[in-house]
Amino acid sequence: MRTQPMLSQFMNSITIDNCHIHFNDNAYSILNSYLDAHDISSLFILADTNTHLHCLPKFIAQIETDIPIEIIEIETGEETKSIETCISVWNVLSELGADRKSLVINLGGGVVTDLGGFVACTYKRGIRYINVPTTLLAMVDASVGGKTGIDLGTLKNQIGIIRSGEMVLVDTSFLGTLPKNQMRSGLAEMLKHGLINDLDHWQQLSSLDQMASEDLDRLIRDSILIKSNIVAQDPFEAKERKYLNFGHTLGHATESFFLGKMDRNTLLHGEAIAIGLVMECFISHKLKCFPKGDCDAVKTTMQNHFGKVEISEEDRATIMELLKYDKKNTHGQVNFVLLESIGKPVVDCVVDNALILEAFAYYES
Amino acid sequence: MRTQPMLSQFMNSITIDNCHIHFNDNAYSILNSYLDAHDISSLFILADTNTHLHCLPKFIAQIETDIPIEIIEIETGEETKSIETCISVWNVLSELGADRKSLVINLGGGVVTDLGGFVACTYKRGIRYINVPTTLLAMVDASVGGKTGIDLGTLKNQIGIIRSGEMVLVDTSFLGTLPKNQMRSGLAEMLKHGLINDLDHWQQLSSLDQMASEDLDRLIRDSILIKSNIVAQDPFEAKERKYLNFGHTLGHATESFFLGKMDRNTLLHGEAIAIGLVMECFISHKLKCFPKGDCDAVKTTMQNHFGKVEISEEDRATIMELLKYDKKNTHGQVNFVLLESIGKPVVDCVVDNALILEAFAYYES
Repeated sequence: MRTQPMLSQFMNSITIDNCHIHFNDNAYSILNSYLDAHDISSLFILADTNTHLHCLPKFIAQIETDIPIEIIEIETGEETKSIETCISVWNVLSELGADRKSLVINLGGGVVTDLGGFVACTYKRGIRYINVPTTLLAMVDASVGGKTGIDLGTLKNQIGIIRSGEMVLVDTSFLGTLPKNQMRSGLAEMLKHGLINDLDHWQQLSSLDQMASEDLDRLIRDSILIKSNIVAQDPFEAKERKYLNFGHTLGHATESFFLGKMDRNTLLHGEAIAIGLVMECFISHKLKCFPKGDCDAVKTTMQNHFGKVEISEEDRATIMELLKYDKKNTHGQVNFVLLESIGKPVVDCVVDNALILEAFAYYES
Repeated sequence: MRTQPMLSQFMNSITIDNCHIHFNDNAYSILNSYLDAHDISSLFILADTNTHLHCLPKFIAQIETDIPIEIIEIETGEETKSIETCISVWNVLSELGADRKSLVINLGGGVVTDLGGFVACTYKRGIRYINVPTTLLAMVDASVGGKTGIDLGTLKNQIGIIRSGEMVLVDTSFLGTLPKNQMRSGLAEMLKHGLINDLDHWQQLSSLDQMASEDLDRLIRDSILIKSNIVAQDPFEAKERKYLNFGHTLGHATESFFLGKMDRNTLLHGEAIAIGLVMECFISHKLKCFPKGDCDAVKTTMQNHFGKVEISEEDRATIMELLKYDKKNTHGQVNFVLLESIGKPVVDCVVDNALILEAFAYYES
């Protein structure tokens, strides 16, 4: 019988359907066994400028293999998540002789894992990949569940496919160097997991006063477990997986809006989702009897962590216009996910524009 | 009990695993029932300049539905099978409000079905599509088996994924306006199906003296059946599906070579495959005891239909260089499919360069 390491260092892997998530030191020994046991011709590690500098040295030091390794570096930032970057990476893979037995390891935040997954799924009609998320957002959201994707112009994730990688390795020590705004961007998705699925998770997170808490590792694993369970119920987003879009209808449109404005600071994904969560809680209150007290608590928690972004009347109109590109739309209709209570989402809700304007006003109040 | 139409007008559908292929008039009634029975928000028909002109009017006349229809036209030709065309089509879909309940119908040859399939599989992470092949090559090969793809520069089908459409509709009356070189391009793949799987199919096809024979409909269905059976055994090309690559290792490299030469006429896919088939039969004779008599018969049949293309010594070297991009390569090694006899393929064969040069000499002799 193996001795169980202390809980603070060791977290059990999550394995649900074809989703395998391993944590911290344990993750590296599983990766090394995987590399040893599979017929892999070459390894390509995709990193961005930041992760190449801050994460790759640690990651490489943990890999034990004779398989040839090549590093592919892309720029940092959402603008990189484009088809043009895919073309560059496909060409580099081709020039370096990547074949169907090659393995791509995506080392980075959501841009790297989303784009790298898409590149791997489409190169020579699909090669294997592994995600190693280095930001909190990628750990709890982007790298779990097999959604790959790139942006089409300013439209987020318009192009992509759903196919899980071989595994996800979560090494929470990468969070040590992450700037505060990146940490809170991930927190928004964790808060959302609580709101749609688990009152207890929501309460623990909303009372968390700093992100470096020693409870963070456990909360990250809990959050990933919530997402994995939802994805396993409905991998191709026919019903339950739509719950994960709570806060994202207005959140994505807001993010696209700021991405398209050259004269403004871009909002990080989670920062935009925080706005969407407050607004969609308000709409839930109006349409689905979501309790006003909970709605106000969500607003307070979000504003404590994220502050308030000023959105002018003109901007509001443009954001509402962008809703027509939402991927959940059908038959020309925008479909919201709303909440009846914390942990009880409902899908395919239609919301009229007047109420969306009220929600903007509530957010700004 | 329904009256069975005469065989010449009615061919039974092929349904194997998730592959559904319907023929001629029957295909349209099945399509109309499908449109009626499914929740489809809008229909997008992708055509090229030729099929827009020659095939779309007939096709549209057979469709009975109230679902809104939009036509998207792309240029004709292999150069169109690029990521740039995908970007245009994705943008048009986006602007015209295509959503996850939209259906794409690809009406055209292999360029339209391969590219249109890829666009549909990746738009908003995947929407439904139907292939309506209008060339012989697309009927017997490209549109069956779920391989979608585009070229990366001159490298054929380097980017793509494998996912079958909802169904394939084969209306052989579209062949009426097809030029002779397009017909023989399809014939090459049919001949290959015979060589790898069915002596009788090979013999019937090699004794076919003109492509407009009244037997053609039946031979097309037989050829599709061979391919569908192989794909069903091995959808993701671990073993049996590789048989379909017979003739394609040297065939694809030759096709890529001519695609890259601006000063030469491009070879059609089947015209390049015909060269690959002769050369790979010769290599099979040398390495796998494929009978010399059969090898010579293949060469005679191919030269009767396709003539002979002059390939200089310098060109041969360049073609051999291009083999390193073959999608079947692993660990830096080119893997050929060879034949022990007609109907008995073997995979993952290594061939040295000297023998490839001999095969060029045999082809030209």
